[in-house]
Amino acid sequence: MKVFTTIAEVPLPTVRRALVPTMGALHEGHLSLVRRAKELGQEVAVSIFVNPTQFGPNEDYLRYPRPLERDLELCEREGVDFVFAPSVEEMYSPSPAKVQVPLVTDEFEGKLRPGHFDGVATVVAKLFGILRPDVAVFGLKDLQQCAVIQKLVNDLNLRVELAFEPTLREDSGLARSSRNVYLSDEERKVSAQIYQSLQKCRLAVLEDRNAEETIQEEISSLEAVGFKVQYLEWIDRSTFHSTRTNKENGAIVFAGYLGNTRLIDNILITA
Amino acid sequence: MKVFTTIAEVPLPTVRRALVPTMGALHEGHLSLVRRAKELGQEVAVSIFVNPTQFGPNEDYLRYPRPLERDLELCEREGVDFVFAPSVEEMYSPSPAKVQVPLVTDEFEGKLRPGHFDGVATVVAKLFGILRPDVAVFGLKDLQQCAVIQKLVNDLNLRVELAFEPTLREDSGLARSSRNVYLSDEERKVSAQIYQSLQKCRLAVLEDRNAEETIQEEISSLEAVGFKVQYLEWIDRSTFHSTRTNKENGAIVFAGYLGNTRLIDNILITA
Repeated sequence: MKVFTTIAEVPLPTVRRALVPTMGALHEGHLSLVRRAKELGQEVAVSIFVNPTQFGPNEDYLRYPRPLERDLELCEREGVDFVFAPSVEEMYSPSPAKVQVPLVTDEFEGKLRPGHFDGVATVVAKLFGILRPDVAVFGLKDLQQCAVIQKLVNDLNLRVELAFEPTLREDSGLARSSRNVYLSDEERKVSAQIYQSLQKCRLAVLEDRNAEETIQEEISSLEAVGFKVQYLEWIDRSTFHSTRTNKENGAIVFAGYLGNTRLIDNILITA
Repeated sequence: MKVFTTIAEVPLPTVRRALVPTMGALHEGHLSLVRRAKELGQEVAVSIFVNPTQFGPNEDYLRYPRPLERDLELCEREGVDFVFAPSVEEMYSPSPAKVQVPLVTDEFEGKLRPGHFDGVATVVAKLFGILRPDVAVFGLKDLQQCAVIQKLVNDLNLRVELAFEPTLREDSGLARSSRNVYLSDEERKVSAQIYQSLQKCRLAVLEDRNAEETIQEEISSLEAVGFKVQYLEWIDRSTFHSTRTNKENGAIVFAGYLGNTRLIDNILITA
């Protein structure tokens, strides 16, 4: 497996190339994306880049885990063809050009983390430019990010196929995330509650029971066990605004703090 | 020659593709770009799209000339391989993603035409996504636009070579422009003064005479013959800010109104 750290080294694809863009700290969730990429492309590239422009000033950019050696071992073991792991200086000039994706960034993560999705859209556009993948694989764990990237690709005509893959979960139901390392044992137990609440809300929507009421109940029961809930809402994936009607393309999305750790999760209404 | 009006029709390149992005109303200036494209690529594509997002609310979007039949004839005659001439609906969804290029858009056209370069950068990124050119040819007539596109390509890693070609002029020195059709015979005569002023400023810079003073004198003499000068300035092409030192990468840039017609022009210090 080759490891490239400069843009100039990256060869243009000669066979169908599948890309898995990551911030490293790889876990089983990422590896499931890599396995999917191997099915979708003849060549698999993984990018590892903790992108500073998608972190807010009070977020965890500096303490975000960066176990590069281990990440490379995992990629090697999965049969990845090459890893692209650039420095920040390699990726950004002073005052760099920026991509903005409106509409799907109006609410939720877009509102709570100003500038986050500009950072995501810009770095993904850059990675697509550098790596020229035929297909790119993303995890549904970051559901709003998937909507942003889909709109980015459509609106800027990036000619990259997108594959969105299901969230991998622990036996408890906790979604796999690089940020789970921040959780204490006690918090890890409590966090299992998120998936249960998502499932209850989904069922209420599917069975045409009062979704509004169920959502409010679940917010209360999450706060009762120690969460500071930022949102628990039924949304339309095409606009990423709240909905009370769209089941077909709907999802329940959650974000909240448990202690100092921010967790997000979601469940599709029909899947 | 083929003419495509939908994105789906545009084939990916199989040989080295050179693109000339235009807003149509083709004149000798454009044709010189097409001829350069034929030298640079094995296949030549011309895009014709009057891009609404780069016009301000009080600008000439609606009255901008659109002689499509004639443009296609000219392209055919020059041996263009295909023209891409989409509708506005084909190019833009509601609330489309947008590219912003900072720094080189701070001053001059960027300041006088808010949003103009966002529109330019976005449509060029889209055209590059749709047409996937190996090389794209632009006219130096729109010098700040060239700086914006160079930075766009660098910062978003668009992997497109850029060729910037000299401005074509009438015998009088007036730069060829689609907007010259708005000029009366009398205005056309007076407008020859622009190139003379640019040359005088350039000479003052090259000969280390007082550039500041020469610029002020030329603004006065342009206003004396009827121009409303917006700027006449010595700039550094890498930042597109004013300079009083950079000859190597410097230029004199002009914008102003003659009657209702806005004209821009420029001259490189060393060329």
